[in-house]
Amino acid sequence: MTIRALVWNEFFHEQHNETVKAIYPDGIHRTIADFLGKEEGIEASTATLPEPEHGLPQERLDETDVLLWWGHKAHGQVEDAIVERVAERVHQGMGLIVLHSGHFSKPFKRLMGTPCSLRWREAGERERLWAVNRSHPIVQGIGHSIELPNSEMYGEPFLVPEPLETVFISWYEGGEVFRSGLTYQRGAGKIFYLGPGHETYPIYHHPQIQRVIVNAVRWAHNPAAAWTDVAAAPNVPVDKAPEKIERKGGSLHKPGEQGYR
Amino acid sequence: MTIRALVWNEFFHEQHNETVKAIYPDGIHRTIADFLGKEEGIEASTATLPEPEHGLPQERLDETDVLLWWGHKAHGQVEDAIVERVAERVHQGMGLIVLHSGHFSKPFKRLMGTPCSLRWREAGERERLWAVNRSHPIVQGIGHSIELPNSEMYGEPFLVPEPLETVFISWYEGGEVFRSGLTYQRGAGKIFYLGPGHETYPIYHHPQIQRVIVNAVRWAHNPAAAWTDVAAAPNVPVDKAPEKIERKGGSLHKPGEQGYR
Amino acid sequence: MTIRALVWNEFFHEQHNETVKAIYPDGIHRTIADFLGKEEGIEASTATLPEPEHGLPQERLDETDVLLWWGHKAHGQVEDAIVERVAERVHQGMGLIVLHSGHFSKPFKRLMGTPCSLRWREAGERERLWAVNRSHPIVQGIGHSIELPNSEMYGEPFLVPEPLETVFISWYEGGEVFRSGLTYQRGAGKIFYLGPGHETYPIYHHPQIQRVIVNAVRWAHNPAAAWTDVAAAPNVPVDKAPEKIERKGGSLHKPGEQGYR
Amino acid sequence: MTIRALVWNEFFHEQHNETVKAIYPDGIHRTIADFLGKEEGIEASTATLPEPEHGLPQERLDETDVLLWWGHKAHGQVEDAIVERVAERVHQGMGLIVLHSGHFSKPFKRLMGTPCSLRWREAGERERLWAVNRSHPIVQGIGHSIELPNSEMYGEPFLVPEPLETVFISWYEGGEVFRSGLTYQRGAGKIFYLGPGHETYPIYHHPQIQRVIVNAVRWAHNPAAAWTDVAAAPNVPVDKAPEKIERKGGSLHKPGEQGYR
Repeated sequence: MTIRALVWNEFFHEQHNETVKAIYPDGIHRTIADFLGKEEGIEASTATLPEPEHGLPQERLDETDVLLWWGHKAHGQVEDAIVERVAERVHQGMGLIVLHSGHFSKPFKRLMGTPCSLRWREAGERERLWAVNRSHPIVQGIGHSIELPNSEMYGEPFLVPEPLETVFISWYEGGEVFRSGLTYQRGAGKIFYLGPGHETYPIYHHPQIQRVIVNAVRWAHNPAAAWTDVAAAPNVPVDKAPEKIERKGGSLHKPGEQGYR
Repeated sequence: MTIRALVWNEFFHEQHNETVKAIYPDGIHRTIADFLGKEEGIEASTATLPEPEHGLPQERLDETDVLLWWGHKAHGQVEDAIVERVAERVHQGMGLIVLHSGHFSKPFKRLMGTPCSLRWREAGERERLWAVNRSHPIVQGIGHSIELPNSEMYGEPFLVPEPLETVFISWYEGGEVFRSGLTYQRGAGKIFYLGPGHETYPIYHHPQIQRVIVNAVRWAHNPAAAWTDVAAAPNVPVDKAPEKIERKGGSLHKPGEQGYR
Repeated sequence: MTIRALVWNEFFHEQHNETVKAIYPDGIHRTIADFLGKEEGIEASTATLPEPEHGLPQERLDETDVLLWWGHKAHGQVEDAIVERVAERVHQGMGLIVLHSGHFSKPFKRLMGTPCSLRWREAGERERLWAVNRSHPIVQGIGHSIELPNSEMYGEPFLVPEPLETVFISWYEGGEVFRSGLTYQRGAGKIFYLGPGHETYPIYHHPQIQRVIVNAVRWAHNPAAAWTDVAAAPNVPVDKAPEKIERKGGSLHKPGEQGYR
Repeated sequence: MTIRALVWNEFFHEQHNETVKAIYPDGIHRTIADFLGKEEGIEASTATLPEPEHGLPQERLDETDVLLWWGHKAHGQVEDAIVERVAERVHQGMGLIVLHSGHFSKPFKRLMGTPCSLRWREAGERERLWAVNRSHPIVQGIGHSIELPNSEMYGEPFLVPEPLETVFISWYEGGEVFRSGLTYQRGAGKIFYLGPGHETYPIYHHPQIQRVIVNAVRWAHNPAAAWTDVAAAPNVPVDKAPEKIERKGGSLHKPGEQGYR
């Protein structure tokens, strides 16, 4: 079964900052889609903020198995209706990989329910990601750690819920630590947050980081059919109860009535 | 240290439905505040939907240690700005007890990031809440279970994140089960969801349910000072790094600049 | 890649109790191995208590991807050295499916670290397992619940650690509930506990239960290479530290010395 | 209510190594008990390996609310029966604080069910513990981090189960990271593992570390009555079922019979 991955990028700095343009001439999304597309069983396409509906119309999301999200300067420009659409597809089973500054993106904050804040420093310092569980599917082929010569520091406290699993913890030259690989489940959808990816360093060209992202796409893919009514709260009428019962006590609803939302 | 509990209620059915009015003549909030207020070290007040700012101006929330939330028919009338205010106070450390149909309230959905949907049936059937961990502070004084002669069925799947702890699981006469007591941490705030509480049955008059709510208020109280900047993402300048480092590599931000949100 | 499943059974009641013999003439292990072996990509064999080393010599475990465990009356006859061997293989990455009364088996208690106690009743009552997360790999093809006309009641409190995921919760005719499907990770190994399976009812002949066990075997299989030194605590010598440092302060160990255990 | 804390130490290096003796002339246990005993509402005593029953007879454990455990060289000398006794008391509700090299102690491995292995280096390097959740009771009064000028490196992967909460993550001068503060619940007992404490550095004289240990003792204290039958698996006879049922189907046990273990 082919996994349909969709790489979303706000695509701003690659057009307005010379350093970033030199590293990602066609945009971060293109670089990521290119290495994903070379993998057997993965099909990768892209979408960006300036496209109509940010490139994320409903039909497109419905045909997406795993969405990758990179945003930084333009979080506020992402329309709330699109954020809601993304969240709903995650609840139905679409995987989501949130990259770097995407920690402050609307979809991630929507799905975490927390501030998703952290401490940061842009000093090009060394970062080393340690694999906490070497047997996890997301770290296969990595070894015990990944060393990035230049990285933006993201430091604890990282205001997210306790994760399902802590996959990576980062060490920084300047003295901080960060839970840089975390997994979550929200409804039927699996979520992976990956820390590194500052746009002024060639991080998505790094072979081990590429390996992690490929692994994460496979991990986040839920082959079960979309759970399209995941948000519905169906009434189970008395005569459809698994055990035979009779109605008793007071009542608000008339038989067959919908619940309140 | 006195715990300042605030009981919020949409206060609709108690004014428009005779059955409910007979059980809670002054409103569910009043009943809950009354039994809470009798406890040593707890001070309880109330707020309702029709009040200005739904009775939840910023100063009031700032002086609240634990907020209790009951809503059902009027979830949609709660203003988004107030919901955001409540969520922020939870992140800063305010406890939150979400009751019954509050599973579909805006603050709970905002803090969970999931649909919070479930299956339901209003048949007045018997519910039995089993304590999964008898040593948990929330179940002290309860025994191994609570039996409610009449209750609304809330059934799995309940679309919430995996909890920190499963405190209660309910059995229903009609054949369903439900995780009816769940704890969460969001930022500095502790959250407890309690299933029972349908307004046509006298559930908040039940001594064991009252005991659970009193216990939950004490459990959810975080005595630490409010974490007021929990959502801030402060820059740590290079010269303030815990370890001495020098800036290297490309850069987006000028020294002293704020990050993007 | 073929998954090598090994079904272990104490194989006592099938030889000494007429009711059980009629249901499982060749033993529970044979019934389970038979339906597993029909699945594409699964190869199933069996081992029993009376065999030398309980049928679990080291080489055999080393060639096992997923071990299934059924025991009841003879937990105490399982040798501690074999229990340790099983636990070590789980730590290295072998999957483990613990069935029914295996909750009190030595390997399960060894891996949980808790009493694994529960309440029980043998009345042949109806059990209904509700799928808490319908999109989980273990519940694919099941629908929203499984109904067993006759089952042994296992009731909360079930003294196990909070699971990674709650997959099933059971309802019983007699009024109890039970977390009857739970996942855990211990080292590199994935563990699934499944509640139903009392030997006097034909539960492992039930098509949905068979589907759950097949799904669980696939889920528990970790394709990563065995983490053979998972229990080692290697010294990282000063000159092999990722960052250049020099030794300072007092010391217990001489260079190159092993740590204490 | 006074919390009865008991500090256990193998008490070996303080008698045989001059460096350690100079730092802890009366033993690590004495130093810890001394600062604990100064706290209001905490009463601290000590026990050591050479005492009869390692200073941990049943009556003593029964009167202990929180046990602290420091061991390193002599893990193997702790008798299995005492380990079992400690684990049972934790299941019943006694708190347990495991310190430093206690990661490889028998009680901790018994309660975790995992290898509890890690990587290590004794180079006296700098360690900085970052508070992941600043509002957690265990980190009150600490600020955002603790800096230790000399420490033994303990590095990931740390082979323990996913914790209830990650309280501290450590940064090391030599380039590693470690989850140095973790909470668990096992039965009715709360467990806290704290990383720092190598015996050749004066770590338990450090005011912030002392504050963490005091906080942890208060956090781990479960005021509920001991759950003395936590490991029992009581039969619930048919006529005592919460719902009226009648026995049906085959049976192994005669009425009133005990279950197997």
